[in-house]
Amino acid sequence: MDLKDLFQKSKINDHVVVEGWIKQHRKQKEFGFIDFSDGTTFQHLQIVYDQTISNFAEIQKLLVGCAIKVAGQIVPSIGGNQEFELKAESITLEGDCPADYPIQPKRHTREFLRDVAYLRPRTNLFQAVFKIRSVAAMAIHEYFQSHNYVYVHTPLITTADCEGSDQMFKITTLNFDKLPMKDGHVDMSKDLFGKQAFVTGTGQLHGEAFAMAFKKIYTFGPTFRTENSNTKTHANEFWMIEPEIAFCDLDGLMNIEEEMLKYIVNYVLEHCPQEIAFCDEFVEKGLKEKLTKLVNSQFVRITHHEAVDILKNAPVQWEFTPSYQDDIAKEHEKYLTEYYNGPVFITNWPKDIKAWYMKLNPDNTTVAAVDLEVPGAGELMGGSQREEDYAKLMQRCQDLHVDIDTVDWFINLRKYGGCYHSGFGMGFERLLIYLTGVENIRDVIPFPRTPGNCDY
Amino acid sequence: MDLKDLFQKSKINDHVVVEGWIKQHRKQKEFGFIDFSDGTTFQHLQIVYDQTISNFAEIQKLLVGCAIKVAGQIVPSIGGNQEFELKAESITLEGDCPADYPIQPKRHTREFLRDVAYLRPRTNLFQAVFKIRSVAAMAIHEYFQSHNYVYVHTPLITTADCEGSDQMFKITTLNFDKLPMKDGHVDMSKDLFGKQAFVTGTGQLHGEAFAMAFKKIYTFGPTFRTENSNTKTHANEFWMIEPEIAFCDLDGLMNIEEEMLKYIVNYVLEHCPQEIAFCDEFVEKGLKEKLTKLVNSQFVRITHHEAVDILKNAPVQWEFTPSYQDDIAKEHEKYLTEYYNGPVFITNWPKDIKAWYMKLNPDNTTVAAVDLEVPGAGELMGGSQREEDYAKLMQRCQDLHVDIDTVDWFINLRKYGGCYHSGFGMGFERLLIYLTGVENIRDVIPFPRTPGNCDY
Repeated sequence: MDLKDLFQKSKINDHVVVEGWIKQHRKQKEFGFIDFSDGTTFQHLQIVYDQTISNFAEIQKLLVGCAIKVAGQIVPSIGGNQEFELKAESITLEGDCPADYPIQPKRHTREFLRDVAYLRPRTNLFQAVFKIRSVAAMAIHEYFQSHNYVYVHTPLITTADCEGSDQMFKITTLNFDKLPMKDGHVDMSKDLFGKQAFVTGTGQLHGEAFAMAFKKIYTFGPTFRTENSNTKTHANEFWMIEPEIAFCDLDGLMNIEEEMLKYIVNYVLEHCPQEIAFCDEFVEKGLKEKLTKLVNSQFVRITHHEAVDILKNAPVQWEFTPSYQDDIAKEHEKYLTEYYNGPVFITNWPKDIKAWYMKLNPDNTTVAAVDLEVPGAGELMGGSQREEDYAKLMQRCQDLHVDIDTVDWFINLRKYGGCYHSGFGMGFERLLIYLTGVENIRDVIPFPRTPGNCDY
Repeated sequence: MDLKDLFQKSKINDHVVVEGWIKQHRKQKEFGFIDFSDGTTFQHLQIVYDQTISNFAEIQKLLVGCAIKVAGQIVPSIGGNQEFELKAESITLEGDCPADYPIQPKRHTREFLRDVAYLRPRTNLFQAVFKIRSVAAMAIHEYFQSHNYVYVHTPLITTADCEGSDQMFKITTLNFDKLPMKDGHVDMSKDLFGKQAFVTGTGQLHGEAFAMAFKKIYTFGPTFRTENSNTKTHANEFWMIEPEIAFCDLDGLMNIEEEMLKYIVNYVLEHCPQEIAFCDEFVEKGLKEKLTKLVNSQFVRITHHEAVDILKNAPVQWEFTPSYQDDIAKEHEKYLTEYYNGPVFITNWPKDIKAWYMKLNPDNTTVAAVDLEVPGAGELMGGSQREEDYAKLMQRCQDLHVDIDTVDWFINLRKYGGCYHSGFGMGFERLLIYLTGVENIRDVIPFPRTPGNCDY
């Protein structure tokens, strides 16, 4: 049976069979104690055996990492802080493990563990991180499905280069050693799709088409960026959530963002108490308090202009001078969330630093965009009301030299019963960094891909 | 409010505000009837308005497809088969729609609708199909999460070409017009990952690494195939579910497959009664009965050898002669599911026609693989117990010329507490074809990618 079920349902004197791995093994002459885990719960089970077991001598030789099957009886725990332990009646070796097994019961550096990425999910840290990743994903699905959203699988392969083809991976089935040429260029018409194809960094455009049919939709899938940058927060493959809501303005969007984030955080607190307690103790002191505070806080809403006012009046020597025309730097984000002691929505950004599809405000200089700044996480979500006016959007495309041929269908959505609508994007890994306290994006992705690193 | 909530919670005399789209508009001199939908439920709402409404003349001009906002009161329905309708007090136009709107209230061909893929989710058929897609995805997450599985996001970008690089898309950031050359070949060391990278067709190998840590895991994400084939069941991008379970043999795997499939089908029947009824009436007669029957059936389990015996003894003139050494053809699959009048697991396949990582049976000629054949769907899942013996797996790799350098970590899993384990893969679109009765994979994917087709 799964350890998770055992801890939830089993009672003293029950006879059970469990299968899992040896995490530690303390041997005495007449006894042995095995710290046992099967990964279905963060909690370990103590297994006690003595010489009444037939293969006592062989069992005593088993090392950390071995896979074993144990049949036994649940008995009250004598020492330790657990309620019960398992008195083994038989122990069978399912898979041996040698003494040079890299994952020993001691502290390993995160760098070392990245080098053995295929083994690191067996450590306490990564048991916690990847369980939280799974539970947070479920929280996202539960939030949206219970609020009448339709989950849409937007395509990853695209031939539209509206994001700028430099930022997208090209994909091809052509043989690099025998590239078909035409007029001195590679002849992409010979490729599988008859033209150059990319893997995309957003599902938003396709999401909007579905929001115009289902009112409320969300995407949740992998995303790619070619950024050649080796920071703690960049990876070339990560997961994104992109909800899109028809008949929703910027205020409505902020309501959704706030409600969704609190739902996820609360869900993880409820479903992963041991994992969060572990991260609180060993990764980020005060993590649980930080998360609990967020659930109970009310998010502040200010305009970009107001934010810059606060920054200009702040008694701080800024590295980057705050400006009504510019983006907000990391140091500014940090100051603002500390100033308000909680999450802050910043709205109505200068149009020149935001995307072409965002709704122009009546002032003609700002767009109805919103970024959510969260203490300890920085910008966690970015969204906007979308430009629903066909003529204005066309104008904006022309001004910014967007290739209209590849997005004409998207612009056409404004022609056929288009309505005011809004959406946002949240990087899933950024959320996980916030939820676990782990600092490096490489440590919240099962097998991270960063420049020069694509092993496993 | 969402129509879904209105139908579930509103009562006669309630005042409500709804926003959505005009699906049909019948006008009389003193009245108008709008067939109204917002996409949050398959059900439409009838809106009635009369001359007491201030902008009666303008409202009468509104065409199919317009986005409108309606405030009104719920009143008992006079005619029709609905319990109530909405008596409008005000109707506001949110987004106009011209007379040449392609989606008119009549039957369109599927081919035409593929050409307007960005508008087709507004039709009844695709409202049903894509809602079922969303609900089936949720069913999958609920099944696995409630059975102690961890959801793992395995990477799509890979440098291992163990599937055969011909079957994978290559990805690159290199400029095709200025490819760096070295010794007459493209110098892939100059690419972002320092070598040739691909997007993958399976998460199984990485899934196994996580199963050795969490016991029970599943993946659910997009997958790519370069197959240049234009059939009803092939697409170059689709979604897969790949569970992997430690301490699980082939019998255990079949138990899981059967339980999971029944769970999903039952969940969709419960959560999408209107969508299923629609598909039953307009797509596949008898769909609901087919699905209900599956939930209540017991799946048959036979070996490949037994299957071939049955086929050889069948009073049928086969196009492909059944053979103990060969794969089972489509005509054979169909016969077997009809013979047993239900789903059939076929186990223990000839090793030469199955993958290198499958467990060799003691007979040395078959492997512990299992395909699930479902009436009306063909092969819905394929799985196997995995070879857990390090030496045997190495031998198999060498025999089949698998590039060991790129999968050494996977083979190493057998060295460090590896145990008997099993897993399977299910193509999500194949499931959806079964659930909806829609025959063509292009019609269950929001924006399908097939050879030569990558618009939108």
